[in-house]
Amino acid sequence: MNIFCNDDILLRSVASQRLYHGIASSLPIVDYHCHINARDIAEDVRFDNITQIWLRGDHYKWRLMRTAGVDERLITGDASDREKFDAWINTVSYAAGHPLYHWSHLELLRYFGFTGDITPANAGAIWDISSDILSKSDMSSRGLILQSNVERLCTTDDPADALESHTAILSDPEFKVGVHPTFRPDPAVDIEKTSFPEYIQRLSAACGTEILSLKDLQYAILSRIEYFADRGCVIADHGTEKIAFRPADAARVAQIFEKRMSTSESTLSAEDVESYKTEMMMFCAEAYHMKGWTMQVHFGCRRDNNTIALGALGPNTGYDTIANGNNIETLARYLDALQTQNSLPRMILYSLNPNDNAALDTLAGCFREGDGASYISHGAAWWFNDHEQGIRDHLLSLSAQSYLPAFIGMLTDSRSLLSYSRHEYFRRIFCDLLGGWVEDGRMTGDPDILKEIVTRVCYQNAASLFASKN
Amino acid sequence: MNIFCNDDILLRSVASQRLYHGIASSLPIVDYHCHINARDIAEDVRFDNITQIWLRGDHYKWRLMRTAGVDERLITGDASDREKFDAWINTVSYAAGHPLYHWSHLELLRYFGFTGDITPANAGAIWDISSDILSKSDMSSRGLILQSNVERLCTTDDPADALESHTAILSDPEFKVGVHPTFRPDPAVDIEKTSFPEYIQRLSAACGTEILSLKDLQYAILSRIEYFADRGCVIADHGTEKIAFRPADAARVAQIFEKRMSTSESTLSAEDVESYKTEMMMFCAEAYHMKGWTMQVHFGCRRDNNTIALGALGPNTGYDTIANGNNIETLARYLDALQTQNSLPRMILYSLNPNDNAALDTLAGCFREGDGASYISHGAAWWFNDHEQGIRDHLLSLSAQSYLPAFIGMLTDSRSLLSYSRHEYFRRIFCDLLGGWVEDGRMTGDPDILKEIVTRVCYQNAASLFASKN
Amino acid sequence: MNIFCNDDILLRSVASQRLYHGIASSLPIVDYHCHINARDIAEDVRFDNITQIWLRGDHYKWRLMRTAGVDERLITGDASDREKFDAWINTVSYAAGHPLYHWSHLELLRYFGFTGDITPANAGAIWDISSDILSKSDMSSRGLILQSNVERLCTTDDPADALESHTAILSDPEFKVGVHPTFRPDPAVDIEKTSFPEYIQRLSAACGTEILSLKDLQYAILSRIEYFADRGCVIADHGTEKIAFRPADAARVAQIFEKRMSTSESTLSAEDVESYKTEMMMFCAEAYHMKGWTMQVHFGCRRDNNTIALGALGPNTGYDTIANGNNIETLARYLDALQTQNSLPRMILYSLNPNDNAALDTLAGCFREGDGASYISHGAAWWFNDHEQGIRDHLLSLSAQSYLPAFIGMLTDSRSLLSYSRHEYFRRIFCDLLGGWVEDGRMTGDPDILKEIVTRVCYQNAASLFASKN
Repeated sequence: MNIFCNDDILLRSVASQRLYHGIASSLPIVDYHCHINARDIAEDVRFDNITQIWLRGDHYKWRLMRTAGVDERLITGDASDREKFDAWINTVSYAAGHPLYHWSHLELLRYFGFTGDITPANAGAIWDISSDILSKSDMSSRGLILQSNVERLCTTDDPADALESHTAILSDPEFKVGVHPTFRPDPAVDIEKTSFPEYIQRLSAACGTEILSLKDLQYAILSRIEYFADRGCVIADHGTEKIAFRPADAARVAQIFEKRMSTSESTLSAEDVESYKTEMMMFCAEAYHMKGWTMQVHFGCRRDNNTIALGALGPNTGYDTIANGNNIETLARYLDALQTQNSLPRMILYSLNPNDNAALDTLAGCFREGDGASYISHGAAWWFNDHEQGIRDHLLSLSAQSYLPAFIGMLTDSRSLLSYSRHEYFRRIFCDLLGGWVEDGRMTGDPDILKEIVTRVCYQNAASLFASKN
Repeated sequence: MNIFCNDDILLRSVASQRLYHGIASSLPIVDYHCHINARDIAEDVRFDNITQIWLRGDHYKWRLMRTAGVDERLITGDASDREKFDAWINTVSYAAGHPLYHWSHLELLRYFGFTGDITPANAGAIWDISSDILSKSDMSSRGLILQSNVERLCTTDDPADALESHTAILSDPEFKVGVHPTFRPDPAVDIEKTSFPEYIQRLSAACGTEILSLKDLQYAILSRIEYFADRGCVIADHGTEKIAFRPADAARVAQIFEKRMSTSESTLSAEDVESYKTEMMMFCAEAYHMKGWTMQVHFGCRRDNNTIALGALGPNTGYDTIANGNNIETLARYLDALQTQNSLPRMILYSLNPNDNAALDTLAGCFREGDGASYISHGAAWWFNDHEQGIRDHLLSLSAQSYLPAFIGMLTDSRSLLSYSRHEYFRRIFCDLLGGWVEDGRMTGDPDILKEIVTRVCYQNAASLFASKN
Repeated sequence: MNIFCNDDILLRSVASQRLYHGIASSLPIVDYHCHINARDIAEDVRFDNITQIWLRGDHYKWRLMRTAGVDERLITGDASDREKFDAWINTVSYAAGHPLYHWSHLELLRYFGFTGDITPANAGAIWDISSDILSKSDMSSRGLILQSNVERLCTTDDPADALESHTAILSDPEFKVGVHPTFRPDPAVDIEKTSFPEYIQRLSAACGTEILSLKDLQYAILSRIEYFADRGCVIADHGTEKIAFRPADAARVAQIFEKRMSTSESTLSAEDVESYKTEMMMFCAEAYHMKGWTMQVHFGCRRDNNTIALGALGPNTGYDTIANGNNIETLARYLDALQTQNSLPRMILYSLNPNDNAALDTLAGCFREGDGASYISHGAAWWFNDHEQGIRDHLLSLSAQSYLPAFIGMLTDSRSLLSYSRHEYFRRIFCDLLGGWVEDGRMTGDPDILKEIVTRVCYQNAASLFASKN
């Protein structure tokens, strides 16, 4: 029997069960960070079979199959959808302790009503049931979002993107879910990448202005921020392996930009790169602060570690790792510089390295503006940490060193429309923790207090990011 | 009902309950590291209301209120004591999983007999009960210490301090509690601080000798060590963000000192600063070794991260964070240099970064002198780590990688006289761990062995720091 | 009563008990990494008393005694075997939470049938029982290996070693256990050590060829790899405090080698040392890849921290510590360089710092060759981490971020023949984890799936390292 057929799965106390079933389970989802393609929603795409919605583009699952020894042909190669599905089932059936094991069971149960365990013997049944269900009307992109009780979601978008899909969705009065773009200007920050000058040309084209200087670039960014804001954007996102903070004077950074635009990246020193990035991270943060946006920063990921695989399959194909060596001091100096010049935006910080949890929780408490709770917020357990123990560890650290009711809550960070069930997964773990404390006499059983904490963490805090902004 | 009204709170097995109630709960407290103001004890000060004893000067609570979004006026501003109290109750009522949530309940129960939960609805009752109780005779500073069963406590003091309050307390035959100063010479080590030359003048004045050279300074320090020793001091303390170890020859360090005294700190290189600090840390350790003192070293804290708040409120106001990047190799080389020259004092090491637990536990086992158990000791879970999970993690690492019966035990590290209840909190967690092992068949139930372990960790090991020294 | 007299010790659920007793407990042991002296097996040595088999050479126990305050005379000094034994019993009796506490009970029960707790009062009984048992025929080296159900074991050997004992064991048709050498060429890599030139002479003598250049050295290493392969070797091992990756051109590295052979190590820069090590680590890995060997890399240990003790007792006497500061990026670049030139061998990576668990688990998933599962493997919780919580933490991280069924499994890493009971200890913890998931509804109860996972992790994956190679 599918492990999630048990309504109380992951909920080990009666108090936990009450919190989940009585409060958390029915709250709408505000998925403030995901990687869904807005075009899929605009076009309300459908899926021929479960491989297309479950495995296509999901490099979490590819990586697991590789670690299990599956041939690449059955992962990203020319095997049939059914062959790939079978390879996946053969892998995940044995993936004890892996979040994909739980998520997969939960997805099959919630979206396909499959009530069995995932085992090689059940592969045929799963394929057949899912094919049948996928033909139903509510299994389109929009249907999946609606049946998941999603109130809002934020896609992740390039500043040069015209956001045509977002505009189309916004202009459709029948689809009430908020689909917001997120402004992610990494390609304009990553001056060390070979593709940087080409990207600046793309951005130039998107704005319809020439970008010849740093000032031009910053003007272009401001113009794209307005463009995004007009289409519902309230959140930005930055990703970097290591946080840099090496301020240089404006003239020097302008030179670095110009040098880069006229030569290859190899002419830049490591200091040049850091100074340029520092300037851009300061500039962007200031702009977000003026717009009232929230700024996300994701760090601690070393990407594309396998050069051969990068050449064969491209980026984001399952060859990333947790990095270490991020210095919390650098981040502290960055935040302080923003606060000192009165331009610190609301922020959500994520490190891929779980060792950073405690330091991030304490650092976040050192900064705020006005009376906002958790103005600098430690975001939900990210990516490789998004598993049962990782979520618990994150919540324990945050509750002990920050303020649990102000936690910004869960997000999917996913490319798949089935991933909304990760909110259920999170809510169960969260209610298990809180209810466990009540049952052990570690906290009050006062229903008003418990309701407020559950509602804020599972819904309200994330919803408030959009307050009076759309 | 107040969660700590349950006598067995945190004690999940019968064996744990027996260890706590039968042995641990009645042991005296030796609080070998705190930040209580000795003058409060000398003058036996009293408190008009609970805000004065609970919130004044307690930047742990200020930080939590800020993270919860409370206006600064209600934290450190000109709001009334009652307004500040209400703001605190509104904050802590929801602080699930935060150590202040548990500590606050425990403090209200033990010192004020308040048997309810902390909720906004109970704010008035708590205010009234506490006002009533505070007017009773045993609620003065000395009364609180006596009713807490404190045998000795160590304040934290500046070498330039005349220790008048300590002298007054020592000379009072009616107050039997040992109130010992701790020698904390950070201002004489932190040569990179703007205030360094001014501090050297203060120290000079305290000694009545001119300090013109490094030799003079070291002579002054030796003289203050004697002065402190004469007033009951047996412990020193050093705090630093990062441990430095860059030995230089004596003449070079003497030059660095003289240069600093005649110019601003900006003329010193990072290497100069490290060399000076290394010399002073070696010198002090050697002096402590000769006196038979214990040396505490606290590292891994990055202080005063918010420049604006530092300007407005000063240091130690709730803007500190866990740092990372401390290299265990540096500490290893420092300890080895001391051992090699036969001047390694007994030490207690604390890192604010919980990731350092395992490395500290194994490093400590590499050094000793004579037959002392845990000659180099990993101190109790410090500051941000002083919560239920942090204490457990620290104890698990220490027991697996060091030797639990030799652990030096709990301290309050607090500015508040109500914090002695943290010893109860620790003892419950400790007995829960140990009793749990007995109940699970993970260790013997031999009562003599259990009694020895509990007694050593909760009392004896700390008491032995003072053996034949006062 | 000895805590391990309870057949279900450490097994907290019925499902866990079934997995352990029904599957795991009877699987043979493949101990793919240990430090047993092959000569002890070749000569089938016996032991006069328990001190000789339990304490001699076991620096884990020495360290614990030192931390407990035992006089060095009773540890490594001239005290009698019985005095040392009593000192050890007095120490370990109180070592709550230490893995040696559990291991010691388990060893006394399994090999000596001692059913009591370890307490000072039982010292005499333990001494007497063990003396009696040690006189029995099956308590020789070979007898202990056979009664432990060991199928294969890998000793750790110097490339210059003639492997005479291995040859003797191989040629004895009556002893069926595979005793394989491991190729550990650290002394040829550690160019910064004073003993390097002397070691090169030893290696030269072993090969019967002169080593005057880097090319000669590499030729010698290839020749020793063949020699080892002919005597059953399929695994190599490298140990280093920090992973280095600083490629330099071949001519430059050749110069570094020649310079070192003609002068002292002090003439080498840190860059020289890193470049030489990088070249040797690339060269060795490539050679292993061609032979189809598995390469182990152990890093994150800072050895011999106490200079005085090193002088008095030598290396490997209990003065090592967990290091920090290893950069996962360096390791990533090393693995990628090997993969890029198509010479990445199967690897098992170990860090002594438990903070590296998550990063290692994710990094390992970025590389593979062909269809091998977990081609790059995160080895079992190493040394200081080899305790109940450390094993659990390692398994939780590995299962959540890698693929549990492909985990290479347990090893003893021990100098003692009694340490095979650590496999029982691991198997109990592993079955407790897995069975707990089944019982909590966190995974399927499908018996075929469970049997496959248990069998692979506890036996099959390690056994497959030897497939068709001996």
